[in-house]
Order: sequence, then C-alpha cells, then structure tokens
Amino acid sequence: MSDYRFFAKPQPMPLAEIAARTNARLAGREGAGDIAISGVATLEDARPGEIVFYDSTRYAPALALCRASACFLREGASAQPPEGVARLFVADPHRAMALAGALLFPEALAPGSLFLAAGASPGAIVHPTARLESGVTLDPGVVVGPFAEIGAGSVLGAQASIGPGVKIGRNCRIGPHASLMHAFIGDRVIIHAGVRLGQDGFGFALGAQGHLKAPQLKRVVVQDDVEIGANTTIDRGALRDTIVGEGAKIDNLVQIGHNVVIGRGCVICAQTGVAGSTEIGDFVVIGGQAAIGGHLMIGAGAQIAARAGVVRDVAPGARMGGAPARPIREFLRAEALLSRMSRRSAAPSREG
Amino acid sequence: MSDYRFFAKPQPMPLAEIAARTNARLAGREGAGDIAISGVATLEDARPGEIVFYDSTRYAPALALCRASACFLREGASAQPPEGVARLFVADPHRAMALAGALLFPEALAPGSLFLAAGASPGAIVHPTARLESGVTLDPGVVVGPFAEIGAGSVLGAQASIGPGVKIGRNCRIGPHASLMHAFIGDRVIIHAGVRLGQDGFGFALGAQGHLKAPQLKRVVVQDDVEIGANTTIDRGALRDTIVGEGAKIDNLVQIGHNVVIGRGCVICAQTGVAGSTEIGDFVVIGGQAAIGGHLMIGAGAQIAARAGVVRDVAPGARMGGAPARPIREFLRAEALLSRMSRRSAAPSREG
Amino acid sequence: MSDYRFFAKPQPMPLAEIAARTNARLAGREGAGDIAISGVATLEDARPGEIVFYDSTRYAPALALCRASACFLREGASAQPPEGVARLFVADPHRAMALAGALLFPEALAPGSLFLAAGASPGAIVHPTARLESGVTLDPGVVVGPFAEIGAGSVLGAQASIGPGVKIGRNCRIGPHASLMHAFIGDRVIIHAGVRLGQDGFGFALGAQGHLKAPQLKRVVVQDDVEIGANTTIDRGALRDTIVGEGAKIDNLVQIGHNVVIGRGCVICAQTGVAGSTEIGDFVVIGGQAAIGGHLMIGAGAQIAARAGVVRDVAPGARMGGAPARPIREFLRAEALLSRMSRRSAAPSREG
Repeated sequence: MSDYRFFAKPQPMPLAEIAARTNARLAGREGAGDIAISGVATLEDARPGEIVFYDSTRYAPALALCRASACFLREGASAQPPEGVARLFVADPHRAMALAGALLFPEALAPGSLFLAAGASPGAIVHPTARLESGVTLDPGVVVGPFAEIGAGSVLGAQASIGPGVKIGRNCRIGPHASLMHAFIGDRVIIHAGVRLGQDGFGFALGAQGHLKAPQLKRVVVQDDVEIGANTTIDRGALRDTIVGEGAKIDNLVQIGHNVVIGRGCVICAQTGVAGSTEIGDFVVIGGQAAIGGHLMIGAGAQIAARAGVVRDVAPGARMGGAPARPIREFLRAEALLSRMSRRSAAPSREG
Repeated sequence: MSDYRFFAKPQPMPLAEIAARTNARLAGREGAGDIAISGVATLEDARPGEIVFYDSTRYAPALALCRASACFLREGASAQPPEGVARLFVADPHRAMALAGALLFPEALAPGSLFLAAGASPGAIVHPTARLESGVTLDPGVVVGPFAEIGAGSVLGAQASIGPGVKIGRNCRIGPHASLMHAFIGDRVIIHAGVRLGQDGFGFALGAQGHLKAPQLKRVVVQDDVEIGANTTIDRGALRDTIVGEGAKIDNLVQIGHNVVIGRGCVICAQTGVAGSTEIGDFVVIGGQAAIGGHLMIGAGAQIAARAGVVRDVAPGARMGGAPARPIREFLRAEALLSRMSRRSAAPSREG
Repeated sequence: MSDYRFFAKPQPMPLAEIAARTNARLAGREGAGDIAISGVATLEDARPGEIVFYDSTRYAPALALCRASACFLREGASAQPPEGVARLFVADPHRAMALAGALLFPEALAPGSLFLAAGASPGAIVHPTARLESGVTLDPGVVVGPFAEIGAGSVLGAQASIGPGVKIGRNCRIGPHASLMHAFIGDRVIIHAGVRLGQDGFGFALGAQGHLKAPQLKRVVVQDDVEIGANTTIDRGALRDTIVGEGAKIDNLVQIGHNVVIGRGCVICAQTGVAGSTEIGDFVVIGGQAAIGGHLMIGAGAQIAARAGVVRDVAPGARMGGAPARPIREFLRAEALLSRMSRRSAAPSREG
C-alpha cells in the first residue's frame, strides 16, 4: 500500500504489449512476452513484475544484481542484466522507460486536483462574468476573476488565482497557489505550484530624483504543451508580449523578464534567469543557474551550459559555457590552463 | 479589442500636451501639436496615433521604417524617423517614454485588484481587531490577522495574507499570494505576487549535536515608494530590523537576509542574494544573480555587475564585477588575459 | 510597546540562571547574578537589562561603548566590555546568545499562527477523510486534502495547502501559502511560507518531435527537526524518494531536484541548487548560490563555498570552492595568480 498511497497500483500490462508500444526488440525466455508488468523502478529497488532501464556504465554493478522482470537497454550494451531478466532493446532506454511509465501510470503525467475534486469545490470563488467550459475542476480556494475564460478539462489547484481577462485553454493543469494575470494560456499547459505569471516587468527610468516606473502594457502568452516549474516568475511585456513557445519546458525558480520570446521546444533548467527583451530560438537548451543578458538573440538549437553568463548574441547551434560565456571548448581550455598554472605556482620551490 | 483586454483604451491626448509634460521640443509638420496620441509602442509595431522612442543605434533600421505618429529622441541623434513622424527632442528618451506611458495609462502604474473589486470581497477574512482605513480593497481569499493596520487606498490581491500586528501604509498594492509578517510597510509600496516578508532569518548556532535556532526577534521595515518583485524573500531581523529604504526597487526572486539595510533608491535585479547583516548605501545598483556576502558595507552609489560575487566592503561609487568581485576594469582585464592565453595555448603547434 | 508588538515582553530572568543554563562562567560585581535580564540586543543598541555577545574583533569598538547589563564572550577575548557590564565566559558566544534568546523568547523559536488562532479557523477547508490529531491549528484559508494526516500540536499558516495522502508529524509549523504534495513530514519540522514540496521533478526524455514527460512516481520525505526556507522548491522523486535528513536546515529560494538525498544536519544556504539524483552526506555545509550537479556524491562533512559549481564527486570532509569547484586552496591560488597577472599586464609600459 505504502508505495501506492499517491498513485493507484496499475493494471498489469503484458511485456509484449510494452515492447510493441515502445518499439523494442524483446529477448528473453519462452513466454517472456506474457510476463505481467505492474511497475517501473530503479535498478537497485526493482522487484519481479517491474521494469527498469540501463543506459550508463556507471550503473553496470547495479544492473548485475537487478531483480526486475525486464530491462530496457541499447543493442550492444556494454553490460547485461542477470539471466532471468528479459531484455528490451531500444534506441533510447531513457525515453522507452518514460513511455512505459506513462503507459502504466497515465494519471501521473499531469498534476491532479489537490482535493481529488471534480467540478467546482466549495470555497472556490468565480466571478459571475467568467466563462468556464464544461468539465473544469476548481479546488478549494481558487479565485477566478472577471471575464476570465477556462477551457474544458482544465484543473486548477488549491488557491490558484486567475486575474481578469486571462484565457486558459483546454486540459491545462494549474498548480496550487499559482497566480496568472495578463496572460493567455494554450492547451495542455502545466503550470506548477507558486508560479507567477504576468506581473509587471522590472521597467524603470532610473534617476537621482527617483526611479520612474514604465507602465507594462502587454501580456504573457504561453503556447500549447508548455510546462512551467514551481515558483518560476514570468513578467508580462511592456510594449510587446512575453512569449513561451510551444512545448517549451521551464524548471523551478526560473526568472523570465518582460518582452522575452522563448522558442518552441526550449528547455530551461532551474534558477536560470533571462533578462528583458531577449529572443531565444527554437529547441535551445539552457542549464541550471545560467544567466542570459537582455536584448540578445540566442540562435536556434544553441546549448548553454549550467551557470553560463551570456552577454552577447549566440549563433544557432553553438555550445557555450562560462561567464562571460564563450564557446564551450575555449571555456574548458581556459579552465584547464588556469588550473595547470595555479598548481605549478604552488610547487614547493616557489612557495618555500 | 484584443490589445485593450487588460488596459482600457486611453483617452487620446494631443501631442503638444505630451511634449509639454515630458519637457520635449516638438519638431514636425504644421499642426503636429494637434495629433491625437492614444498609445505607446515599439518601433516595429507602432501604428499612426502611437508614440515611440529611439535611443540606441541598434534600432536605427527599425526607426527608418517606423509608422508611429511621433518619436522621442535625443537632440543630435544619429538617426531620424521617416519624414511624416513628428519628433520630440528630449534629454532621456526612455524616461520621456515612461512618462508618456504613465500619462496615457495611469491605471497601469500599479497592479490592481485581481477581482476588479472595490472594498472587501466575499471570501476575505479580517480579524475583528484589525484596523482598516476607508477605501481599502481586499480581493477574495485575503486574510488579515489580529491588530494589523491597513491605510486608505491600499489594495490587497487575491489570497494575500497579513500577519498579526503588521502595518501597511496608504495607497499600497499587495500582490496576490504575498505574505507579510513582522513587517511595517510605508506608503505607495508595491509588493508583487508571492513575496515573502518577515519570516525567520536563517540563524543557527551550528553544532555536531544539532543546529541551535537563534530566535529572530525583529522586523522588516519597508519605506515609502518601494517596489518588490514576485516571489522575492526578505527575512526579518534577528536583533535589529531588516530595512528597505525609500524608493528602492527590487526585482523578482531576490533573497534579502536578516538584518540587511538597503539604502534609498537602490535597484536590485532578479535572483540576486544579499547575505545577512550587510548594509547597502543609497542609490546602489546591483545586476541580476549577484551575490553580496554577509556583514559587508557597500558604499553609496556603487554599481555591482550582474553575477558579481562581493566578498569585501565596496567603496562609495565603485564599479565592481566578477567573482570574487574586483574593480570592473581589473575584472575585464583578467577576462581578456585569460581568453588570450587560452587561445594561444590552443594554437595548432601546441595541440598537434 | 513598539519593540514588543510582535513578541511578548519576556518574564525577566536572573543573570545567574542564564549563566547556569548556558554553561557560562559569570564574572562581575557582587550581586551580578541577581541582575534581571529581559532582552537580547546588538552591541550598539543594548540597554540596561539586556544581554549581548562579542565574538569578533570587528566589533571591538562597539563593545567598548556597550550599555548592556551582560555580555557573552570567550575566555581570553581580545577586547572587554566597559567596567559595569557583567561578563559571561563561554566556549561559543554565538551559541550561548542563541540559547539565551530561546530562554527569554521561547515563542519566537517557531513561527506561529498568522491569525493567532488555536484549532481550526473559519475558512479552513478540511476533507472529511483527512485525519487530524488533537491540538492542530489551522489558519484561515488552509486546505487539507483527502486522506491527509496531521499530528498533534502542528500549526498550519494561512492558506497552506496539504495534498491528498500527505502525512505531517507532530509539532510542525507549516508557513502560510506553502503547498505540500506527495510528502511525508516528520516531527518538529518548520516549513516556511511559499515552500513547494512534492511537485513533479523536471524529468523529460528530450526529442526533436517533442519532449516526453517521465512520470514522477515517488515522494518527498522530510525527517524530524528539518527547517526549510521561504519559497524553496523540493521536487518529489521519480523512481526513488527525495529525502531531507534529520535536522537539516535549508534556506530560502533553494532548489532541490528529484531523487536527491540530503544527509542529517546539512546546512544549505539561500538560492543554492542541487540537481537531480545527487546524494549529500551528513553535516555537509553549502554556501549561498552554489550549484551541485546531478548524479554526484558529496561526502559527509564536506564544505562547499558560496557560489561554487560542483561538477564531480566530493570526498568526505573536503573544502571546495570556485566554478567548476576545486579544493578551496587551489581555487584561492588560481584567483590570486590571475589577479597578479592581470595587474601586471595592465602596467603602463605594456599598455603604452
């Protein structure tokens, strides 16, 4: 029971079906296709009836001791599970595992109601001018403002608040305590707890007599299939919209400044900041705690290392690291050089 | 309609009036002063009836194609808008534009009620001992604790919570989901969504037998005209107050430790952290993701670059960068030197 | 009154009792043990009746002018308070001061109800299947979901939300606006305002056709006596639990990724991020804004400097700094070397 306190124990699924749905080549004892799979697990924790994956030599020792019923791995993998474990050969074991998890635990793919509610809970407050399609779930404490619109199948977690005129698409999940203002949200968007969307950007004309606030007149537009992590803040635009492109995934505690445009399929890891008016092309990947300066262009497909500090435009497909950021090979070379020099300067004959 | 879903279309204002109020010299065709201005826009998006600004050669191409009715720019600017666009010469185009925006969209200068409410909404809970002046707006879900005081004209966004004894001045805006405890707030303060004010500072006497919590007995004092960004955290003082000085502007996701004193008119950009007991002088500017160590003195007017890591006192007016921070010229020199050396060490003859 | 708006003026305590309870050697005028102590203060602000501490030569000038009734200091301290101030000699003045503060202001050791409430407030919403022990305090707006369990003596601040099946132990303090999902919380845990616990980890199988979400099936386990700072985010595990060990202290705006294990007694300062699946040993101390990469082992007792960027395993007891992190002595040497070189390269004869 304890393991299934939060997600219901799944209906077991025959291994052959999992193989078919993950496009895997199944290798195992006669009848392996009939093994009933009812869970996913780590190599260390797996028990019979569960499936695991192997994709790094780091975990070869754990693989050798694994008690799972089946394992995703690459053709020609450097290590193999024990005899009794059926093998599912795939191109990308991590992806196959994600898919198997999704098949077994479909309700875990998107956060649900904090109250396991359906429909509007007691304690939710909806302005009479707001328009909700059918099948919208509102947890206790949710506030929906005037003229807001929420699409069918969307779930708003406890105490989420939706400002006047905000539009939310269909099948969205809005986490508890999130606040959405001056925002248009597409379909199937996941917004986690405590996200702040659409507050004023940080725009001031600085001056010794006091800083003059520049009105922030535009919106935040979040396209379909975006996911935004807990306590992340995205300011609305001043004179043009702040935009998060289709399918982009943003982690926790990220800051997105006003007027920023984030392309389709971008991945932005935790605690990164993007300063105002920067444009990030499609499928850019940015590591954690990176900083992207304002008014820059980051070309499509660029990869920015964790902790990088980007102060100039980045070419499409470039790989950048360091602060200030430079091409990753140059960055690593500079690091190695400095490390060598400092070790040399510390030699006894120089210190003595 | 779509552009004015969130802010009402403004009453048009004659260009001559805008010129007078922004202290601009108007140059244009006969009758240019009578042009009706009803919006502000970017150079790219502007349409007739809107006003723009130009202050960087980066945007000269956009200026050349601009379709606005009028443009703020500097006397002797390097580029000019097309013939038909009236010119407003000013000392600081960005500041003039902020002023024009404020004239046209006065309600955009401060966040409003999430429920477009006036007075206390249904679902707001106010302790009977709390004292509210007239004209206070409480959105649904607001909680006001015992002995709290709120000044006239202040607006509390959905689900903001005000702890016992907290004082809030007049004409403040408290964003949705903000929590204020052990705090005194001045007049005209803007606190955005999810701000955490006045929780315990991070004070422990560390020890192998367990870390002993040091009681945090003081308050957070926020002076007049301060603005604090979304999800920013400011801890209350341990033995003396944490203070944010008059007119200071703090961005999103900033951390201010216990006992910190921030001077008047300071500007602190997103994701910066200031460790406990540090004092920051008036009109200091700190870029994003900077770190200021504890128990330091940052002199008035100092400028700290984004991502700087300050570990020593900083002289008034100094400009610092890097981590650990040093004078910005020295920092840039070190960067250039390292870059040169690493390129040299990568020359073919050395790699081959 | 003003100083005691938030914490009640304490019952005065004889200095001899404070000395006994802090294991101090009291030195002072005849009858010093009878002095009534009713407050703790800084060296600068202290008045008669208050106690202070001195542990750094930085504060020797303030010590010389101090008007407190008594002062904690080390045997053989480099400076002494004025004649009239009783001296309490202890091994660790900071720890003794924390203890004295706790004796005088016991209610300041843990955040209380925002409504000064006891029991369930009006406006708290508790699912009928939730189980609350006796003596649980719920502030207005609290939401407790189905099958949640809350132990005796715990206090939930305004609008905290507790997801389905979450267990909270005894004598916990959950701050306002915190959200707890998929979580097991021990006894005497303090969770500050806006903390996000148990949302989905950031797990995707990336791909050009879209990023595939990997279901996050496990929990966050927070052991006894942990304290977690405001707006910190801790994701639940994917295939194994995210764990915060007994007595660990985590500051504000920290990010803890899925599957991370944090050992007993760890201290993690503000704005630090720990990427997924990393294991941190017991009593590790991590400074502010540090970054710990994913899938690493940080040995027990290691000390990681503020702003360090850790990309490799760290040995037990090691002291690391810089980004990428290296042993702190090597890091400081590299910094010094670079600084010397850049000053040399800036000499007039080279620039001219």
